[in-house]
Amino acid sequence: MDLVKDLKWKKGMDVATLVNSLGKVGFQAIHLERAKETIIKMKKDGCKIYLTFTSNMVTSGLRGFFAQLIKLGLVDVVVTTVGGIEEDIMKAHKEDFVIGDFNSNDVELYEKGVNRVGNLFIRSESYAKFEDLMKPYLKDIYSKKKRVTPSEIFNEIGLKLDDEDSILFQAAKKKVPIFCPAVTDGAFGFHLFMFQQDHSDFVVDVVKDFSNILFSTSQDEKKGLISLGGSISKHHAILACLLNGGLDYAVYMTTASSSSGSMSGASTNEAKSWGKIKDDSDAVTVIGDVSVTFPLVMVSVLEALEKENLLKE
Amino acid sequence: MDLVKDLKWKKGMDVATLVNSLGKVGFQAIHLERAKETIIKMKKDGCKIYLTFTSNMVTSGLRGFFAQLIKLGLVDVVVTTVGGIEEDIMKAHKEDFVIGDFNSNDVELYEKGVNRVGNLFIRSESYAKFEDLMKPYLKDIYSKKKRVTPSEIFNEIGLKLDDEDSILFQAAKKKVPIFCPAVTDGAFGFHLFMFQQDHSDFVVDVVKDFSNILFSTSQDEKKGLISLGGSISKHHAILACLLNGGLDYAVYMTTASSSSGSMSGASTNEAKSWGKIKDDSDAVTVIGDVSVTFPLVMVSVLEALEKENLLKE
Amino acid sequence: MDLVKDLKWKKGMDVATLVNSLGKVGFQAIHLERAKETIIKMKKDGCKIYLTFTSNMVTSGLRGFFAQLIKLGLVDVVVTTVGGIEEDIMKAHKEDFVIGDFNSNDVELYEKGVNRVGNLFIRSESYAKFEDLMKPYLKDIYSKKKRVTPSEIFNEIGLKLDDEDSILFQAAKKKVPIFCPAVTDGAFGFHLFMFQQDHSDFVVDVVKDFSNILFSTSQDEKKGLISLGGSISKHHAILACLLNGGLDYAVYMTTASSSSGSMSGASTNEAKSWGKIKDDSDAVTVIGDVSVTFPLVMVSVLEALEKENLLKE
Amino acid sequence: MDLVKDLKWKKGMDVATLVNSLGKVGFQAIHLERAKETIIKMKKDGCKIYLTFTSNMVTSGLRGFFAQLIKLGLVDVVVTTVGGIEEDIMKAHKEDFVIGDFNSNDVELYEKGVNRVGNLFIRSESYAKFEDLMKPYLKDIYSKKKRVTPSEIFNEIGLKLDDEDSILFQAAKKKVPIFCPAVTDGAFGFHLFMFQQDHSDFVVDVVKDFSNILFSTSQDEKKGLISLGGSISKHHAILACLLNGGLDYAVYMTTASSSSGSMSGASTNEAKSWGKIKDDSDAVTVIGDVSVTFPLVMVSVLEALEKENLLKE
Repeated sequence: MDLVKDLKWKKGMDVATLVNSLGKVGFQAIHLERAKETIIKMKKDGCKIYLTFTSNMVTSGLRGFFAQLIKLGLVDVVVTTVGGIEEDIMKAHKEDFVIGDFNSNDVELYEKGVNRVGNLFIRSESYAKFEDLMKPYLKDIYSKKKRVTPSEIFNEIGLKLDDEDSILFQAAKKKVPIFCPAVTDGAFGFHLFMFQQDHSDFVVDVVKDFSNILFSTSQDEKKGLISLGGSISKHHAILACLLNGGLDYAVYMTTASSSSGSMSGASTNEAKSWGKIKDDSDAVTVIGDVSVTFPLVMVSVLEALEKENLLKE
Repeated sequence: MDLVKDLKWKKGMDVATLVNSLGKVGFQAIHLERAKETIIKMKKDGCKIYLTFTSNMVTSGLRGFFAQLIKLGLVDVVVTTVGGIEEDIMKAHKEDFVIGDFNSNDVELYEKGVNRVGNLFIRSESYAKFEDLMKPYLKDIYSKKKRVTPSEIFNEIGLKLDDEDSILFQAAKKKVPIFCPAVTDGAFGFHLFMFQQDHSDFVVDVVKDFSNILFSTSQDEKKGLISLGGSISKHHAILACLLNGGLDYAVYMTTASSSSGSMSGASTNEAKSWGKIKDDSDAVTVIGDVSVTFPLVMVSVLEALEKENLLKE
Repeated sequence: MDLVKDLKWKKGMDVATLVNSLGKVGFQAIHLERAKETIIKMKKDGCKIYLTFTSNMVTSGLRGFFAQLIKLGLVDVVVTTVGGIEEDIMKAHKEDFVIGDFNSNDVELYEKGVNRVGNLFIRSESYAKFEDLMKPYLKDIYSKKKRVTPSEIFNEIGLKLDDEDSILFQAAKKKVPIFCPAVTDGAFGFHLFMFQQDHSDFVVDVVKDFSNILFSTSQDEKKGLISLGGSISKHHAILACLLNGGLDYAVYMTTASSSSGSMSGASTNEAKSWGKIKDDSDAVTVIGDVSVTFPLVMVSVLEALEKENLLKE
Repeated sequence: MDLVKDLKWKKGMDVATLVNSLGKVGFQAIHLERAKETIIKMKKDGCKIYLTFTSNMVTSGLRGFFAQLIKLGLVDVVVTTVGGIEEDIMKAHKEDFVIGDFNSNDVELYEKGVNRVGNLFIRSESYAKFEDLMKPYLKDIYSKKKRVTPSEIFNEIGLKLDDEDSILFQAAKKKVPIFCPAVTDGAFGFHLFMFQQDHSDFVVDVVKDFSNILFSTSQDEKKGLISLGGSISKHHAILACLLNGGLDYAVYMTTASSSSGSMSGASTNEAKSWGKIKDDSDAVTVIGDVSVTFPLVMVSVLEALEKENLLKE
């Protein structure tokens, strides 16, 4: 029986100490600390670790943190939405994103060529430059192969980037596949379409990538999931693991509630009814904005693993 | 200047009367009534109307309502996630879904072969039967064409169904295309993969479907969107309209909040900064579970259109 | 075993029919229909019925609906926050409230003397007039009694109002007590304070009102609760019933989620651990904005009770 | 123009460094860092600082942290709900609260005498012991004075406690008044009622406490608010400051959204329309569970103030 313990500040408090204390505080603070414990176990238990996130998190400064986690060997498979891919490439080409405001005058922003994502801004010219980048990338890929999967495309592009903070760069370097089941749902899709207009034998084989994510693990391997936000990224990773016998560990971090039956808000409990998560697995759902909760959890995970020499570089 | 007006019950109150009164009540009730007005305008203004929804809504009894809306000529293009396609097909083959409970013992459910979606249950055997259905469908499609788009597949299947309450059936009958940018993200994807294992020249061309949704409208045409829930269905319809000059009318209905910068919670205001929705468009966001808000809005829309003889059948 | 049933629109659909159908649709729609059933049972079972709401609902057009429910004999005890009392009195004196916008320029509103509550506006001059009203009310009450309870004050004021749509008026007429455990938390409190400055023997006896709400029911009586929103109004009614053996029926309608352990988001399940709601009671929580959900539920309750001749007038 | 900056982990990262980085990450992380800056400014600007919280936070381990903040001179006035007072007294008498689970069997808990608050448990016997404590406290207070305010009662009890982690103890020691506008809304209210049964001249003067909170500051004094959660505690502190010319600084931390017009979800923007917060004030709303966000913010505030020697002890 664990007791609630009063939180006390001590001078020079580090993140790991704070997160440990939060485990005795209550409500989501407890879940947050359990998320940390679950991820540490995933790693120590030799799991294949799936990390999923949505594109708004790549808009944010979590992007370089994801890249760092891949670099440090904490991620084996990435699943995301295509907006995140686009923005990672833009940022790798030095496009800056701006801190704005949730309560902006959106019509004025539009007139200035500024696109809003919550309280962050992306300039329209960043998308224009992205178009210029995509053409040679696709040309080069096509020259090697006419029928490619999304994960192959991302790997090819990642190999050409030169940015330590890029998700695609680190993933390519570490041979971490990036899956994106809706590759056409963004500017990326538009450029694929434009390219196919001129090269009708160019085919993006999403079915083959289903096979790739399916064989990214197996029944015998231990499997862990860190799912940030909802969307198909979350569902796709879960599906791949379900078809391989279910997850051994799962951490869901989301703002969505379960009351409307949505996938985004579906809890780790619900997942057990499907066999998506094994009965006896360690599974925890943390409710809150991942821009706050994820750094807290992962910094304390990294501190713990570093102490035990479990981070590669 | 509109004034708040006290709601009063009158015996035999119909839905249209209630929704009209809600427009003077306050908070989301006002938005709900505005959503009704906006959809009526969409229709009268001759818009191409996009309806998007997530798969949990097809799990629910909204499924037959979506089919009815297509039948009545209120929907020109559908965008959804693949789970919704699967469940529509299951239901068209008389698989029943069960009303359960949010607070279920999920491990017990799993042992009984019951999968939970919020407070609804889908039996595992429904998925088993689905597998038996998919094989001949895909075989038949393959016999006609080796390289197909998701929307073609759904149309082919829809033509074979015989259920007035089926989304795919009504869409096929009314030539309403159904787009699904992440066609592999579900059991459907698994069956496509199995089929491709035996037929390596079978290709699902998602890039071509991007072209199809792009050309489903044009700069010159008026465009309206009814978006239920978040996910890529919402984003994909918006994207197609953005590339055609932006939406003239938009109704978002969602439980998600905008505070975390997610697509699901992105408001119609945010969309204006992107040019996704035109500056001077009618646009409204209704916060709440669509299992409640959507029927209220659409029943009152149907009543209004029926009175003016604007429903086809 | 109940099955999900597809919703279908039929011309001239009334609210009762729609709500019945929602009971087979899924997610919160099911809870909404159960809320209706639970309230009908409360009434038929001869419960003492507690209705609680927060002041923003009185800002909205639900105010006249609450008054109507009291008039129709559906409410035996009201618990609310003092802002609701103030606004009911303002409205009874013909102060109009305005429909505004969530995204207003709040600094500009301030300069114009307009106060925002979500998307509703209250003019500062309404508060000024309220001040003029309160003085004679308090003077008159004081002339009869120096030590009064909040519920006595509201009853005295209610007797002086002349507005069918007023909560205080109908409550006074029907001898329905109104409890407000934080009577000083608003402009009302300020005027009580001003009055006490000049009449130091004037005392508002909140402890006596605790006794009044406690003896508003008993162990032997059946008890039902309809709680809208959170706050102390919810808690206070529950507490009074707990001390009388717990509730036999409970309907909570709220936007708050249970994830942070707040009272506003506390579910009917949690209440059972306290004995606030009896083990075997009918209890249901409906998540959503009550400006939408409450009218839907109650209109269908009224239709059902009217058919069985269970409404008094 | 501030740019989004990629978050990077560095070994041994302390909380202050993490929170600084979060200010460039996006979404609520930005608001969290601004909350820190705003509170630092409040303190440096010599504000009277109001801290408000709800009782569930006292159930949690934030209770000792609140006590510590009072001890360190960071809080001048406390406003809370009475449940928090009760639990602080229980804990000061060594009653332990237990870490449980959101998904408990609540009927079983009830049978075991365990009351649930989210994922925390309070034993019924803690309430029984509380009853034994209250009698002598009230007797003693009554022997000195027949007409007392809630804040006097809490101060008298605080002087008798002997627990460094107690809010009432530290508040009494530091002469920080604790206001509770709904003093009867809990077990505390029941014991006041029992006492009044035997001592009919015992009166709790809430109107006098309104005067006390009103004169706790003035037009001339700078005023800052840290409001955790919603409820009347939030509203009451705002009201007292509004009547003194409005707040110069305000930090709202809550899980509630503004979409239903509730007080709990009301933003700092809305407050400006009322003059509750001055036009040009520093004001920030952080959405998220305060069990996570508040420790993060305040630990980094404490680190910053400690460096500049601005903490008393």
